[in-house]
Amino acid sequence: MSLIGKAVIAQGGGPTSVINQSLVGIIEEAKKYPEITRIYGALHGVEGIIHEDFIDLTQETRRNLDDVAHTPSSALLATRVKPDKDYCCEIFKVLKAHEIRYFFYIGGNDSSDTARIVDEYAKAEGYRMRVIHVPKTIDNDLCTNDHTPGYGSAARFVMQAFSGTNLDMRALGGIYIGIIMGRNAGFLAAAASAAKQYEDDGPHLIYLPERPFELDTFYKDVQEVYDRYGRCVIAVSEGIADANGVPIVTKYLEELEKDAHGNTNISGNGALGKLLADKLKNKLKIRRVRADTFGYIQRCFLGCLSDTDCKEAREVGEKAVQFSVLQEKDGSVSIRRIGNYAVQYDLVPFAAVAGLTKKMPDEFINDSGNNVTTAFRDYLRPLLGNGILKVARFRAPRVEKILYKE
Amino acid sequence: MSLIGKAVIAQGGGPTSVINQSLVGIIEEAKKYPEITRIYGALHGVEGIIHEDFIDLTQETRRNLDDVAHTPSSALLATRVKPDKDYCCEIFKVLKAHEIRYFFYIGGNDSSDTARIVDEYAKAEGYRMRVIHVPKTIDNDLCTNDHTPGYGSAARFVMQAFSGTNLDMRALGGIYIGIIMGRNAGFLAAAASAAKQYEDDGPHLIYLPERPFELDTFYKDVQEVYDRYGRCVIAVSEGIADANGVPIVTKYLEELEKDAHGNTNISGNGALGKLLADKLKNKLKIRRVRADTFGYIQRCFLGCLSDTDCKEAREVGEKAVQFSVLQEKDGSVSIRRIGNYAVQYDLVPFAAVAGLTKKMPDEFINDSGNNVTTAFRDYLRPLLGNGILKVARFRAPRVEKILYKE
Repeated sequence: MSLIGKAVIAQGGGPTSVINQSLVGIIEEAKKYPEITRIYGALHGVEGIIHEDFIDLTQETRRNLDDVAHTPSSALLATRVKPDKDYCCEIFKVLKAHEIRYFFYIGGNDSSDTARIVDEYAKAEGYRMRVIHVPKTIDNDLCTNDHTPGYGSAARFVMQAFSGTNLDMRALGGIYIGIIMGRNAGFLAAAASAAKQYEDDGPHLIYLPERPFELDTFYKDVQEVYDRYGRCVIAVSEGIADANGVPIVTKYLEELEKDAHGNTNISGNGALGKLLADKLKNKLKIRRVRADTFGYIQRCFLGCLSDTDCKEAREVGEKAVQFSVLQEKDGSVSIRRIGNYAVQYDLVPFAAVAGLTKKMPDEFINDSGNNVTTAFRDYLRPLLGNGILKVARFRAPRVEKILYKE
Repeated sequence: MSLIGKAVIAQGGGPTSVINQSLVGIIEEAKKYPEITRIYGALHGVEGIIHEDFIDLTQETRRNLDDVAHTPSSALLATRVKPDKDYCCEIFKVLKAHEIRYFFYIGGNDSSDTARIVDEYAKAEGYRMRVIHVPKTIDNDLCTNDHTPGYGSAARFVMQAFSGTNLDMRALGGIYIGIIMGRNAGFLAAAASAAKQYEDDGPHLIYLPERPFELDTFYKDVQEVYDRYGRCVIAVSEGIADANGVPIVTKYLEELEKDAHGNTNISGNGALGKLLADKLKNKLKIRRVRADTFGYIQRCFLGCLSDTDCKEAREVGEKAVQFSVLQEKDGSVSIRRIGNYAVQYDLVPFAAVAGLTKKMPDEFINDSGNNVTTAFRDYLRPLLGNGILKVARFRAPRVEKILYKE
């Protein structure tokens, strides 16, 4: 017998540029089924659930939903709360009180874990409820997923930023370091590689959390590139760590704050970039060394969207509803790549995603551990979407010198 | 008698996203006149001239010129050298040796000064040569110009970044500081104001070099906004200074390097952002304070273009050639705003632009000195170009609470 009742949607964790596509995908699809009697949105993720801060999304206009879909960041607002068992019990209590029969949680691996525990409570109490986790993260670090909604657009931002700074450094020379988000996985930093078009283009070096970072090797790598091209453009993942797993930024710096998850906050303070730039200046005696920390700009920059990412983010939302209503299943929606390039959506058990982190596989990282491979470039290409501006150079011949013949 | 000979084009100073539009505008227009026998490009600005590093742009294909035009950064590469009289004498010597009769220098107020001195040498020696300065700068600080090519696109980047971080902070709360380029003029930081759409949107505060920056006032301003909205989004120009004109970043920090012009380098190190974030955290006891330094991303980000800016950058290049060939004049091309909105191009004396800095006029800054006025918003609007994504919010009603009735 089909399950009739209300639905709740919530958004968890850091926002992305396309997380509202998934949200609107769920809403629009849910409207099609008489089984779903109302569609609620919880404000500020799970916090909104335990405080019963719901809005009735059934009372939104289609046109406004369209506009919200292409608006970056979480339209239902977000939370950094990582619920424990007791918190999940509270969530379940509220959902039950409101006769919620469909719970959709859009988020990363922490949100997947919350969905998993809430689902366990429902099953233990014999309360019939469908629970679906809908993937999102710019980090691209969810297991079972070929890639995650949100990654393609953030990757495109990183690519476009490096394309520009590479040209900037080509014009004026020097060393450039761009610090990119990704505490545990280097996928986003690796996306800088797509900026390279000509042989001498940057990024020349890419450092990822998947490989131990050694200052001496770093100096050597940079000096080699600088000697060759008169400049060096470097992409660095904020999560780089030494051979013992100690983050470089904590290894050399104090006074760091930790967030609610016990993670050191390394975005939005510029510490790692300044550290590496200072070290290069002192060691290599190169004067013009610049470091930018991409920080919060990279994940919600207005209008920097991969069309592929937008489409897929929308589709994981739609599929979430179809899996729950038509297949009456619980689990996490997952993206599988088929052909070159298309995707298929699966529903996988929460446990396959919850609390786990996918890292860059070995075949995506070069032997020296300071760049990506062609395999990664091939993997990334379709995710960036269409319509990226190509850069061009002059090809005109040199003019013969008159005064200072060589 | 019309002046027959070769032309040289050079690009100086920091690159912009549309500086190559001006370059290609000059090339395409120059090709139309038989007076101009060859079109040379000097590599790395004036350095390329004194080293006779020229390429023959007459031998470029139209299609490649089109591609170069929309490529960010200086396709002829740039220089930070600020020529003195002797250097300008060397420039003149080389130009004369190559029988250059048209010298086009695309750059800011320093480049305009170089053009002025070279023009003086030519006139003093009785060597017939047309010298034209073509304006560019993301800082928007050239006198006589209503605005400068390069500003609109950089302003659009700043606006789009703040639109995203405002939504990000709305979802997760806290304080956000974005540090924006502009050592002496606050136009670029002020562009963040265009991100505000709803009454509670950021940026809530904007600090400019045109007004003295006081830490105590800053604390008060931020606390007020934070108490009201539970978040605070702040745009800060890198050049903010105290009442005595001492830059805030040098007032509180040491270990700063200076560039060739004797200016303190305050981009690309994150120092000011970290300083302000730390001070807010300590003083206001607010935990989530993030600072991003926009750095080099903001001036050449691939594909972040104002169509208005592109068109005008192209036109100042075309007009440079027309003023020199058809009107046989020397000077600096300048943009004048007519109607709402169109522009007209004038040729003004070098001295009206050279070495001078235009600041934000008083009517663009609010009385408290911590935001812009409606007059500035009206001024900025057409410069950002068309096709900017609108952001949207849900307008759905709240659902009545069941468990925790208020």
